[in-house]
Amino acid sequence: MKLVSYRLKGNLGSYRIGFLHNDKIVDVQHAYQRYLFANGKRDLANDVERLLPSNPNTYFSLGSLLFEKASSAYGYALDSELAGYQRNEVLIGTPISNPGKIICVGKNYADHAAEMESDIPDFPVLFAKFDNAIIGPEDNIVKSGSTSKLDYEVELGIVIGKETSKVSRENAYDYIAGYTIGNDISARDLQRRTQQWLQGKTLDKSTPIGPYVVTKDEVENPANLSVRSFVNGEERQSSNTSLLIFDIPFLIEYISKTITLKPGDIILTGTPNGVGVAMNPPQFLKDGDVVTVEIDGVGRMENKVVKK
Amino acid sequence: MKLVSYRLKGNLGSYRIGFLHNDKIVDVQHAYQRYLFANGKRDLANDVERLLPSNPNTYFSLGSLLFEKASSAYGYALDSELAGYQRNEVLIGTPISNPGKIICVGKNYADHAAEMESDIPDFPVLFAKFDNAIIGPEDNIVKSGSTSKLDYEVELGIVIGKETSKVSRENAYDYIAGYTIGNDISARDLQRRTQQWLQGKTLDKSTPIGPYVVTKDEVENPANLSVRSFVNGEERQSSNTSLLIFDIPFLIEYISKTITLKPGDIILTGTPNGVGVAMNPPQFLKDGDVVTVEIDGVGRMENKVVKK
Repeated sequence: MKLVSYRLKGNLGSYRIGFLHNDKIVDVQHAYQRYLFANGKRDLANDVERLLPSNPNTYFSLGSLLFEKASSAYGYALDSELAGYQRNEVLIGTPISNPGKIICVGKNYADHAAEMESDIPDFPVLFAKFDNAIIGPEDNIVKSGSTSKLDYEVELGIVIGKETSKVSRENAYDYIAGYTIGNDISARDLQRRTQQWLQGKTLDKSTPIGPYVVTKDEVENPANLSVRSFVNGEERQSSNTSLLIFDIPFLIEYISKTITLKPGDIILTGTPNGVGVAMNPPQFLKDGDVVTVEIDGVGRMENKVVKK
Repeated sequence: MKLVSYRLKGNLGSYRIGFLHNDKIVDVQHAYQRYLFANGKRDLANDVERLLPSNPNTYFSLGSLLFEKASSAYGYALDSELAGYQRNEVLIGTPISNPGKIICVGKNYADHAAEMESDIPDFPVLFAKFDNAIIGPEDNIVKSGSTSKLDYEVELGIVIGKETSKVSRENAYDYIAGYTIGNDISARDLQRRTQQWLQGKTLDKSTPIGPYVVTKDEVENPANLSVRSFVNGEERQSSNTSLLIFDIPFLIEYISKTITLKPGDIILTGTPNGVGVAMNPPQFLKDGDVVTVEIDGVGRMENKVVKK
């Protein structure tokens, strides 16, 4: 399933979770209600708001409790060709607007560590973002007046589906709900102003996450996905998740040794080489630039940079 | 007001917000209901769950919307000598278990920067904690098996009361709800394992925050508060918030330039000298140690270290 957060254009209501299928969006809660009704479960159908919330603020934090229901709803929606909205009838927001944690991994591709004139780390380099930074796949990247060195970083994002602490790498995939893309927009001047990167990494409305969460059953091999970014159509980054220094199971084992992971938490797995600050001469994002990030099988986002 | 999060001993229910007064705890919602009832507002009294939630997970995130109501309730509770619980009848939890952000300031006392063999920073050094780390004033500090260099750091905590972006230092205090204490427990080995401190700063159940939030009207001068810590009764840190390199209004102006602050967000303002890692020889926390942190007018917490 590709789980999007959508709302109808012109409607000031809340975003809701939907399935994206054949470029149409079907409301997940509505599909589940129809599924229950079709199976003679009228009482449950009336209780669908509790059974399968459609609010993106709570959906992913409920994690695996919803997987089976959402899967039944999705199967029903496909079989019955349930009517959906056209892509141009809705706005698509970030699928997870308020994750409990956004854990970012630094220098996790050897060629990126090299271009940053840094050694390959012996352990995962972990840093944080806060949710003030998150925007959706159709939103503009806000270029704060506090930076003149804004840069992009395409990254595979892992969405946690089940709470876990001290999980072994062998069992790590059991705790993943799915995958998404993060464009870990970084203000290089603020990032390097002090030893700690946080202030360059969590600028208001800077970080596109999306375009949806694709559930793990639809991603055959997350350890072999092409990862690319473009600025105004020019390819800047092109790599593959097979080149991660610390791979997905290792990261989950490592992080969960000391940090309990919860449903809806996001791990951004690091970016490959080709970032603007490492170009010669460096190229930073300007007002009006369009940044595209894409990961095969996970999606594609195109966001415009706007000065604020 | 001193706002605590409490629950009755033996009661498996949720924590609720209460006032601490003369070592007794009065439920904030109950006091507000009584206040409304006493003032002939029966309809509102019945709607008190919506008007003044008592759940610590939402209370502080509602921020200034609640200030006036809580203040009326508090006044009524004092005037009418409303019955409260004895301290020994309740458990006290952390007042804010799920802040939207925990923003920590590093090296914000000159003598601490010196003992860490570090220059005085030109700009605030910001890093993050996640809420997996938070424990309450009566909880044990869990010493993870992943560290052998656990250390304490007493810090004044600022609790944000009103959303703000790009606020000037002159107006910064308008956005503060109150103050608390954070013991920014740090695993020095994990903190220094990579360049980024996060993994040494956000270990599960490591960071006491409390014992309550004291509202700003009760703190005459937050820029002149004694700050102390003790291990097994031996004084380790003793300083004053007047020695902060970047003071409270500056921090709020600086952070809010790029990061929107929201009600319930916590800023930990940094720790003075005297941490264990800087002692000669270094002294780290061991199973059974008791760490006490206190800030005049803000409170005192005593937490035992337990190996896990």
